[in-house]
Amino acid sequence: MIHLSLIGIGTGNPEHVTLAAVRALNQAELLLLPRKGEAKSDLIDLRRLLCRDLLEASSRTRVVEFDLPCRDARADYLGAVDDWHDAIAEVWVDLMATHLPEGGRVGMLIWGDPSLYDSSLRIAERLGGERFREGGLQVELKVEIVPGITSLQALTAAHRIPLNALAEPVLITTGRRLRERGWPSDAESVAVMLDSGGAFQALPQEGLTIWWGAYLGMDKQCLIDGPLVDVAATILERRAALRERHGWIMDVYLLRRV
Amino acid sequence: MIHLSLIGIGTGNPEHVTLAAVRALNQAELLLLPRKGEAKSDLIDLRRLLCRDLLEASSRTRVVEFDLPCRDARADYLGAVDDWHDAIAEVWVDLMATHLPEGGRVGMLIWGDPSLYDSSLRIAERLGGERFREGGLQVELKVEIVPGITSLQALTAAHRIPLNALAEPVLITTGRRLRERGWPSDAESVAVMLDSGGAFQALPQEGLTIWWGAYLGMDKQCLIDGPLVDVAATILERRAALRERHGWIMDVYLLRRV
Repeated sequence: MIHLSLIGIGTGNPEHVTLAAVRALNQAELLLLPRKGEAKSDLIDLRRLLCRDLLEASSRTRVVEFDLPCRDARADYLGAVDDWHDAIAEVWVDLMATHLPEGGRVGMLIWGDPSLYDSSLRIAERLGGERFREGGLQVELKVEIVPGITSLQALTAAHRIPLNALAEPVLITTGRRLRERGWPSDAESVAVMLDSGGAFQALPQEGLTIWWGAYLGMDKQCLIDGPLVDVAATILERRAALRERHGWIMDVYLLRRV
Repeated sequence: MIHLSLIGIGTGNPEHVTLAAVRALNQAELLLLPRKGEAKSDLIDLRRLLCRDLLEASSRTRVVEFDLPCRDARADYLGAVDDWHDAIAEVWVDLMATHLPEGGRVGMLIWGDPSLYDSSLRIAERLGGERFREGGLQVELKVEIVPGITSLQALTAAHRIPLNALAEPVLITTGRRLRERGWPSDAESVAVMLDSGGAFQALPQEGLTIWWGAYLGMDKQCLIDGPLVDVAATILERRAALRERHGWIMDVYLLRRV
């Protein structure tokens, strides 16, 4: 029996960790930290820092790093993601079989919150499925989720703005979807995640305000806001320069008709 | 000069508090806790508990409770909310003038996250405005936001589900809006907050799955999920019974076309 805790850790500010997350870290017998390549070493650095600072001396937690498989960059996006999740699930099962052959408590430190644009729940579902059962790896799995602060919350906090206009809805969407569908009909506020860059260019620029943020919660956090017509070019330039300098970028933004 | 920290405290589970929130609580010279009447005493009880458990012995923080003005129940909803926010801003200014006449650090413990369907940012904006400046109460205000776990995050964690379907958008909306506009055209997942009860009845019931939760994070947390056609009546009955038993209810839900 594996007890798997998916532990939200926020988006870069070590103080965004909750008391529940601190407890879950210390209760785990095994913490698995993914390495995502040299360019994104900031992401594993935060996880290492949290383990170093938050694990109590008395804790029996073992910390194991592993290399995350790479996602196929083929055109069939959903198919590529599906195969990628299969590959990650295999790595997880191998690690659990190696380090906890008798079962036990495993923790994963999840960037943001495990519920929002994160794969870990979908990967965990695979562990109980046919594929692994047939291979003789009978993972009986109990999943616990510890919510964490999302990059959207870090964004609105940094800009000191509400996510929603008074009593109004908000659409949370992806850069890909915004490009494909344009401005939605049902919301005056749209939060955009997973944008590989400048999906807002696909919109009519007039009448929209943007609040943009990159590396939210981290020391190198960068914020820009203003009418989209005025700041769109600045954001694109700054984004490209930051990505060049740091080797990676994660950014989100909120658009509102004002 | 007033430094106002709006501190998200999650939705009932004291362990949902972040390390940043713990620090902000201890750095405040004055914490203002709103009393919302006898029926909702659970809400102030959590705040009292957090102050008792998290304020360090060395902290100079003074905790002051105050009665929150009541909102006018008139038909003009937005107008009533506007007047209500004015009234709350007046109470805040009076409390700050009384307890911190020389200025200083004030903290407010905000249910959930100050960015999502919460009034405190809008009330804080009033403090720097004309109204108070003319009255001789020149509040020079610096606002800091400490994000907290929202009831939506507590909901998805409790049900062990993602908020969004893979790479798909999510609309966060209100019960009022769902009744008025029906199912949105731009999302297959809809999270509903601030529903006074059963707004999902306004939708065609077929093909929707619901994940419902009340008193999320608290000991009396109650969860129901399933196809909407099968569980809608159960949710309405349970909601009425719980509200009767506890004197108040707060609930949210996620609907998804599946």
